[in-house]
Amino acid sequence: MLMSKYDKIKTDISHISQLTKKLAKDDPRRIIHSIKVGFAITLVSLFYYFDPLYQGFGVNAMWAVLTAVVVFEFSVGATLGKGVNRALATIIGGMSGFGAHKLSTLSGNKFVEPFLLGLFVFITAGLMTFMRFFPKMKARFDYGLLVFILTFCLICVSGYRNEEVIEMAHIRISSILIGSSTAAIVCVVICPAWAGTDLHNLVSTNILTLSLFFQGFGLEYFNTSSDINSDDEYKTSIDAINNVLNSKNNIDTLLNYARWEFRHGRFKRGHPWTQYQKIGELARHCACRAEALHGLLYSQVQASNEVKAKFQEPCMKISAESGNALNELSIAIKKMNKPSKAKPHLQKAKQAAENLNLMLKSNIWKNLNLSDVTPAATVANLLADVVSCTEDIAEAVQELASLAKFKDVKDVKVSPQIEKAKLTNQGSTKRRCVANNHVILIEIPSPTSSPRVSVPRDPPSLAMAQQNAE
Amino acid sequence: MLMSKYDKIKTDISHISQLTKKLAKDDPRRIIHSIKVGFAITLVSLFYYFDPLYQGFGVNAMWAVLTAVVVFEFSVGATLGKGVNRALATIIGGMSGFGAHKLSTLSGNKFVEPFLLGLFVFITAGLMTFMRFFPKMKARFDYGLLVFILTFCLICVSGYRNEEVIEMAHIRISSILIGSSTAAIVCVVICPAWAGTDLHNLVSTNILTLSLFFQGFGLEYFNTSSDINSDDEYKTSIDAINNVLNSKNNIDTLLNYARWEFRHGRFKRGHPWTQYQKIGELARHCACRAEALHGLLYSQVQASNEVKAKFQEPCMKISAESGNALNELSIAIKKMNKPSKAKPHLQKAKQAAENLNLMLKSNIWKNLNLSDVTPAATVANLLADVVSCTEDIAEAVQELASLAKFKDVKDVKVSPQIEKAKLTNQGSTKRRCVANNHVILIEIPSPTSSPRVSVPRDPPSLAMAQQNAE
Repeated sequence: MLMSKYDKIKTDISHISQLTKKLAKDDPRRIIHSIKVGFAITLVSLFYYFDPLYQGFGVNAMWAVLTAVVVFEFSVGATLGKGVNRALATIIGGMSGFGAHKLSTLSGNKFVEPFLLGLFVFITAGLMTFMRFFPKMKARFDYGLLVFILTFCLICVSGYRNEEVIEMAHIRISSILIGSSTAAIVCVVICPAWAGTDLHNLVSTNILTLSLFFQGFGLEYFNTSSDINSDDEYKTSIDAINNVLNSKNNIDTLLNYARWEFRHGRFKRGHPWTQYQKIGELARHCACRAEALHGLLYSQVQASNEVKAKFQEPCMKISAESGNALNELSIAIKKMNKPSKAKPHLQKAKQAAENLNLMLKSNIWKNLNLSDVTPAATVANLLADVVSCTEDIAEAVQELASLAKFKDVKDVKVSPQIEKAKLTNQGSTKRRCVANNHVILIEIPSPTSSPRVSVPRDPPSLAMAQQNAE
Repeated sequence: MLMSKYDKIKTDISHISQLTKKLAKDDPRRIIHSIKVGFAITLVSLFYYFDPLYQGFGVNAMWAVLTAVVVFEFSVGATLGKGVNRALATIIGGMSGFGAHKLSTLSGNKFVEPFLLGLFVFITAGLMTFMRFFPKMKARFDYGLLVFILTFCLICVSGYRNEEVIEMAHIRISSILIGSSTAAIVCVVICPAWAGTDLHNLVSTNILTLSLFFQGFGLEYFNTSSDINSDDEYKTSIDAINNVLNSKNNIDTLLNYARWEFRHGRFKRGHPWTQYQKIGELARHCACRAEALHGLLYSQVQASNEVKAKFQEPCMKISAESGNALNELSIAIKKMNKPSKAKPHLQKAKQAAENLNLMLKSNIWKNLNLSDVTPAATVANLLADVVSCTEDIAEAVQELASLAKFKDVKDVKVSPQIEKAKLTNQGSTKRRCVANNHVILIEIPSPTSSPRVSVPRDPPSLAMAQQNAE
């Protein structure tokens, strides 16, 4: 009995340690973030420990510690947004609270005063709470409105007791400024995690996921028979596509944070962040097609091999070239180049779609049963739809490139070493393929293929969409 | 100049007032919530205003106000979750902080003490911050971990100055308990907004949206020619489907809140909330098919009218019957009945899909061009896929019904008035249809149709997924 309990605890501990390792490995910035939080709070606590600093603030130094704990977020944008919100809301809320306190003392009646103050608190809290429902306020100033209510109520209410309201408001404001700025400085100076960079990478990764799906789809559809179904492969692929489909909330959150960030790395002030939202939406539409195609891959009704053979060439071409175009778009975003390399692939995909259309109009189908043809025709039609989705994405990326002044790819000087590495990489891509219930790595010579970027299975940016809350 | 500025302000004000009206009309609970927040905070402020209550707490009554502001959330589940998190974390954090304080005084050296305390603060803050990355901790105890860091640091740090640490910790804990419980009681007693009910309604509404789409799809596809495209109608329909596609985050958030709620209304303790997540996911898969179908509705390549005429009957049947089945499932969830009424519709849809398959095998296609047939065949194939999606949803709803012990529909006694209203409603459904660039309301006699439930364009539950933050 005791032994089994001991074993259970042992399993639990090993499970937790495995999870910890995985979390840290997926995004090492998590460890850095934890250390940064510890450091910032310890730094602010100094105000308490050392006498000279303590003299000025007294017990109110506590507010600085509280602020540092609450304001420190994973990304720079979130921290700055929260810090600015808290500081501004404290100043405005403090002044309004002081005003309300003065107004209530005008009555000169100690009995009426608490009722007046109560009324002020009730109306302000109610109004501000309702304002938090406005979508635009919610996106940028939700935290500020909450802190406004808080400060207003505290100053207004405690002003009734404490005669030195101005003094108190002043100390509260300066301690909160100290807490906010300590958090912001530590967050920005030590290994900053930028929400903007994460948004940029997330959108690029999403397009890469689509690209990998379409690059592999043709092979999977035309090389496997219907009864082969490797659950593992199925899950990996559909999980990645589902991540893209469910990325809206993540993108929106990162966008809100990115707006608070100043110039950093390759991102200038006024970087067109909203364009990422647009690309993200188009990518989700494309992912919907991928999901539908994936469903057909394992559907019970399959086209006969004879039919598949006829569709194989144009369909594989459409799928692969759409995938290549998306791959180039993803690389162009990632490297901030103009997406000129995607155009030839897109042209080829469109050409293949036209060929397919011509083929459908020819009379090679006369002797075939329509029910045999339909499954493959559906795939073909959806793939043609994917081409137009890819075109839309390419257009949006082009727009981003011109808005953000991405560099022309011809201007980029490639260092000899990178060029060499590229050459050795070129000419073959490894691809996983399902056949006879085994996952096989196939090397396909493809001179048009670009260097592959690996897709992290758990995009780091997911860690950032956390909405901290005190 | 002055005039134009005045006009601008006037427009802005009218815009804001319109938005306010819309927000309030979309979900009147928002107004109630705002009033409740004002009331709860005013209630807690009483501790400050009235002498007998003030004596016990002094300035620490401020913590009660702060807690009430921060803990009060839109839904009961969110408020309870935050309240419990805050209360428990304060108690545990306070005790740990006191322990750390005692440990550091053991050194007996006034010079070493601050360094020891600093080390404790650093390690605890870092560790707890990392723990917030664990998905399970994040979902339920994110706020608790934050408050733990906060309380630990405050007690630990101020303990260095303030000799009466126990007294301080005690007052802080009791004031936070008062704030939390006031917020919780006001939230539960006055017009409570239950996250569980919202989750239930959101999932039911999502299925209803799908149902409306499929009920209308057959009509739209087979009655409009390719060049007619009413942007307005297009937008409404696709927006609703997009809402379903993007509902994951909302459902997950509501699920987390619902777990904190106790028995309420028709929901017993241990209601299988996670099953809603499963149904939500299946609905999103189905919405993906709807999105793909919608894309085909307005795609440039369309089947000829001759071909469409051949596909019309079975495809319209599949679409309508899938829609009806989904409608019945949605109503069954909403009313918490067993979904037995959906089965006949599902059977009919499956039968129609089989008929379609037989038709495809027949030789009526010999003289047709495959490129003319493909678009319609794609639609037919996707619709067949929709039938299997609908089956999956029906299964999941059936599972929910047996887990949550939904009542058998035969047991339900219908009051004469409702029956009468049903009868007058029956036999005709109004449907919007696009033709010649005009949106027309068409009445279609359909004895199988069930009473319609209107789809709110902005589901109220969206208002609840707000993550409040102090």
